[in-house]
Amino acid sequence: MALKTLIFSFLVLSFHTLTTAATADQPSFFVRSIDREMTEKKENYSHFRFYWQDIVGGANATSIPIIESIPKFNLTSTFGLTRVIDNALTVGPNRTSKLVGRAQGFYVSTSQTEYDFLMIQTFVLFEGVYNGSSITFLARNPINEKVRELPVVGGVGRFRFAKGICSC
Amino acid sequence: MALKTLIFSFLVLSFHTLTTAATADQPSFFVRSIDREMTEKKENYSHFRFYWQDIVGGANATSIPIIESIPKFNLTSTFGLTRVIDNALTVGPNRTSKLVGRAQGFYVSTSQTEYDFLMIQTFVLFEGVYNGSSITFLARNPINEKVRELPVVGGVGRFRFAKGICSC
Amino acid sequence: MALKTLIFSFLVLSFHTLTTAATADQPSFFVRSIDREMTEKKENYSHFRFYWQDIVGGANATSIPIIESIPKFNLTSTFGLTRVIDNALTVGPNRTSKLVGRAQGFYVSTSQTEYDFLMIQTFVLFEGVYNGSSITFLARNPINEKVRELPVVGGVGRFRFAKGICSC
Repeated sequence: MALKTLIFSFLVLSFHTLTTAATADQPSFFVRSIDREMTEKKENYSHFRFYWQDIVGGANATSIPIIESIPKFNLTSTFGLTRVIDNALTVGPNRTSKLVGRAQGFYVSTSQTEYDFLMIQTFVLFEGVYNGSSITFLARNPINEKVRELPVVGGVGRFRFAKGICSC
Repeated sequence: MALKTLIFSFLVLSFHTLTTAATADQPSFFVRSIDREMTEKKENYSHFRFYWQDIVGGANATSIPIIESIPKFNLTSTFGLTRVIDNALTVGPNRTSKLVGRAQGFYVSTSQTEYDFLMIQTFVLFEGVYNGSSITFLARNPINEKVRELPVVGGVGRFRFAKGICSC
Repeated sequence: MALKTLIFSFLVLSFHTLTTAATADQPSFFVRSIDREMTEKKENYSHFRFYWQDIVGGANATSIPIIESIPKFNLTSTFGLTRVIDNALTVGPNRTSKLVGRAQGFYVSTSQTEYDFLMIQTFVLFEGVYNGSSITFLARNPINEKVRELPVVGGVGRFRFAKGICSC
């Protein structure tokens, strides 16, 4: 059982920009206070949508088991199965449609009774101003439920301090 | 060494409700802005308490190793040991007390000198209005310390944008 | 390929202190509301800097493989390789400089084409008022890029409700 192609649609609710003075020539320190005036704050609400391509077999597999499922659950929920992924994120459902980013991380089958995956991954984007920015997820994905949400737990680049919800 | 039964008591400090217009019949897009007026914001402070049942052996084990500890640490801190879990969350300390949810995820033994587990898991709840809502944790759990805290890093459903602290 | 010594410089933007009445003698409950007046809120902006010592071999290794890389990627990106760590955090670049904390967790090689590690770890600090407090990270670390950022996704102790960015 693999997840195959999923649409990820995510709402990013806010992020802030933080600027600090250069510290390169400062003496070594463990902790110091930051002047709050040195921070700038901006909020943006955006909605992204793209396709997550989970290629689980063949010469070009991008989703590969690193831990096999516990034998007792091999034929049912695949409890314990863990796949590492470097999946394409594309603008359309076809694998050959425009690549907008990659999903890197892993997912673990964490139910003894149904297909339910704990997904730990980063979406790094390549498009325009988002090039190099990434969003981090940590959430269960009970794939037989119609509506599933995954919380965004962090981000960097354009997504610094992002909060959000990802639906798939 | 296993964690066995722990009381998890967690404080959820806030969450927001976000509503957006249906997007099903929209043409494909990668990113768009969201009208801030489309979001509603509510905050709730709640305190949950339940028992986490880590059954590590027997025919009904719900906590099963997927990676063994590094041999050098087998008899001490179990460094490297990783267990996948689908543990019951119950209202009381007995395994047979009312089931209020499940803890799904895994934990990794991450100290060379003491019992200290990095816990990556989702608590999905079944009770009343919380049915299907979940909270995600990512934290170390140094089990020989009296007071331990685990940060809530995300949530969905009733726990969208949750912040919180879990004590165990 | 291992990460070796990295400087971690992180900005912690805010945290709150939450106090609640003792609950020890209360009857069992699943959920209850919290009086918002019982919470106190403080914000602090701080900048920490220290060195992360990834000792990958020898008798004193603190970073040890628990999953080997997928054979096809052994000699390139080490896709799939997973190391559990209990690394020293030191105030200076030398391993023998003052120990200020430990980095506990693991990292997974998550790219098929470059060295890019998903890092899931907690930094627990020992210094002064920070003793026992910890910060949790979840982020990709594309080690050949000049500037890398890792989002702080949670914290406990002094870092309750922390937000922040870690550069390395």
